[in-house]
Amino acid sequence: MLFLGDTTEPGYAKTAFGLRDWARDRCVGEHVLAGAMVSTGLPSLSPAQAYARGARAMVIGVANSGGFIPEHWVPALVQAMEAGLDIISGMHARLRDINGLRETADRLGRRLIDVRQPPAGIPIASGLPRQGKRLLTLGTDCALGKKYTALALARAFNARGVDATFRATGQTGILIAGGGIPMDAVVADFAAGAAEMLSPDAPADHWDVIEGQGSLFHPAYAGVSLALLHGSQPDVIVVCHEPGREYMLGHPRFAVPSITDTIELALQLGARTRPGIRCAGVSLNTSRLDEDMANRLLAWETDRLGMPVADPMRSGASFDRLVEACLA
Amino acid sequence: MLFLGDTTEPGYAKTAFGLRDWARDRCVGEHVLAGAMVSTGLPSLSPAQAYARGARAMVIGVANSGGFIPEHWVPALVQAMEAGLDIISGMHARLRDINGLRETADRLGRRLIDVRQPPAGIPIASGLPRQGKRLLTLGTDCALGKKYTALALARAFNARGVDATFRATGQTGILIAGGGIPMDAVVADFAAGAAEMLSPDAPADHWDVIEGQGSLFHPAYAGVSLALLHGSQPDVIVVCHEPGREYMLGHPRFAVPSITDTIELALQLGARTRPGIRCAGVSLNTSRLDEDMANRLLAWETDRLGMPVADPMRSGASFDRLVEACLA
Repeated sequence: MLFLGDTTEPGYAKTAFGLRDWARDRCVGEHVLAGAMVSTGLPSLSPAQAYARGARAMVIGVANSGGFIPEHWVPALVQAMEAGLDIISGMHARLRDINGLRETADRLGRRLIDVRQPPAGIPIASGLPRQGKRLLTLGTDCALGKKYTALALARAFNARGVDATFRATGQTGILIAGGGIPMDAVVADFAAGAAEMLSPDAPADHWDVIEGQGSLFHPAYAGVSLALLHGSQPDVIVVCHEPGREYMLGHPRFAVPSITDTIELALQLGARTRPGIRCAGVSLNTSRLDEDMANRLLAWETDRLGMPVADPMRSGASFDRLVEACLA
Repeated sequence: MLFLGDTTEPGYAKTAFGLRDWARDRCVGEHVLAGAMVSTGLPSLSPAQAYARGARAMVIGVANSGGFIPEHWVPALVQAMEAGLDIISGMHARLRDINGLRETADRLGRRLIDVRQPPAGIPIASGLPRQGKRLLTLGTDCALGKKYTALALARAFNARGVDATFRATGQTGILIAGGGIPMDAVVADFAAGAAEMLSPDAPADHWDVIEGQGSLFHPAYAGVSLALLHGSQPDVIVVCHEPGREYMLGHPRFAVPSITDTIELALQLGARTRPGIRCAGVSLNTSRLDEDMANRLLAWETDRLGMPVADPMRSGASFDRLVEACLA
C-alpha cells in the first residue's frame, strides 16, 4: 500500500508514482490523510482493507523537503502496523529513530525497512575496466525522467532478447528493482566506488542500465553525478531533458543547461574512465505536451541534434530508434 | 606528541609531517614502535617524557591504507592515556569503537577525539553567492601540495596585512587549523553544501584560502573535487602539481593530467557557481629537486604557462609574484 500522507504537491510524491508506474502488480492501493491533494489513482484503502487484499507493507510514497517524517503521520503508521503491515521508507531519516514507530514495531514484530541505506564495504573506486556493457542516463536537471528512461530502456532491451539489468541509484528505483545503492547517502569519498560496486563484472553481452542522479551542471549535486559517471564507466549515455524547463528545480538562479552542452561535458568527463564513451541519443519528458505536439517536438529535435530523440513513455518508432542506437 | 606506529612508508605519515611543518610550536616530540622506518626528526619520547614536557595529547600521525587502527598499536595508545595524554585521530575508524581504548579512556577520564567527523546540520548547497573573497587550491593529483600551498598563501596574505583564513578540508589541515570540515567524510549529497558552510559570508575584503581535495581528473575522487569547487565558489584558483609525477598515486593506469588541462577544466566547471573565476598561477612541489634545478624549472614553467609559477615551500620572488597575482 502506498502512503501519501497529507501531501499537497505532486512533485513530492515521486516514489508513489514510480511504484504505481513500474511495480503496478505489487500495489493494492493508496492511503491518504485528511488534507491530501495528491492521488495515484489507485483505490483508497484503510490499512485493514489493504491487508485483506494482500498488502504486507505500507510504503511511504512521499518525501517532503528535508526528508523527515512529520509527527502527525506517526498515528497512521502505527495503525498500519496494527493492521499487520510492515513500514518501508526511502527517507534520510531512519524509521527506528522515531520512538512511537520503534516501540510499536518491536511490540507487534513488524519490520521497519529503510531503503536509503548504503551497503557495507563500499571500496574506493579503482577505475579498472569491467566486463559487460553499461548505459547511464544523465540529466540536464533533477527529477525529469532519468529513472523512467533507464527502466524503459532495460525493459526494451529485455523485450529484444538482450540480457539487461536496471541498476537503481535512488530510493524509488531501489523499491522498484528490489535492490541498488542510494548514491546520495554514500560518503563522498566512496561515491565512485559505490557506482563500481553497483554494476560489477558481467558477461560480455550483458547490459547494466544505470539510473542517473542529479546533473553535471547542478550547483549542489554535480559531484554525485560525476562520481556516478566515473564509477559506472558507461559505454553509452542517454541524456534526459524536459522541454520548457528553463531553471533548475529548487535553484532558480541556475539556467538548465542545453542538451548539447550536457552531452559534450558528459563525454568529456566520462572518457576519463571509459575511453570510447558515446551518446546514443536523447530522452525527452513530454508529459506536459499533447501527443501531436510531442511528436512534432521529437521529430524536430531528432533533426536538430542529429541523433535519436524519444520519449520512452510514448511508444513508437522514435523510441525504437533510440533503443537500436543504444545497442548498436 | 606525534605517534608514528611502526610505519615504514613516509607517504603514510602525512599527518605527522604536516603538524611538524605547520604546528611546530605545538609538537614536543614523536613516539614510534619497533620496526618504524619513518621519523619526523623531532625528539623520540616516551609518553611520560612527553607529558613532562607539556604534551597533553598523542596524535595518530599516520594513516595506513584503509584508515584503520591495527591491533598492535592499542597497547601504545593505552600507555599514552595512562601517562596522562588524550588520543587524537583523523582516521575513518572511530577511536571509541575500539574496546581497549574506550574502556581505558572511560576509566582514566581521557578524551578520544576523532577529527574526521563532519558537523551536524550541513545543508544542501544553495549555489547563492556569498560576500568575501575565496581562493581554492586544486591538484593534478592527490598528495602533492594543495594543503601546503593553501597554508603558505594564507600566511603570506596575512603577512601583507590581508585578512585571510585557511579553511581545512582534510584531517591534517583540521588538526593544524583547529577546525574545518573533512570533505571526504560528508555524505555525497551534502558535499557542496559542506563547502558552502566551510567558507561562509564574510567581510568583502576577507579571503578564505581553501584546501583542495583530490583532482577533477581522479577516477575515485573527482566528485569530491567538483563538489568542493562548486560549493567554494572561488574567485581565484591555484593549480598544484608535482613535476615528474606521471601516473596518479595508487591508480597507475591513469596519467596525471597536464597543468593546462587542469586549469581549463577547473575554470570551465567552476564558472557554473562563480562566473569570473580565474587562475592566478601554479604551485609546483619541487621537494625532490635541488635548489638550482627547482629555480630553473620554476622559471621555465613561468615562461611556458604565462603566469606565476612558484614552490610555496621555497621563498623568493616567484612566490611573491604568485601571491600578488592571487590578490590582484
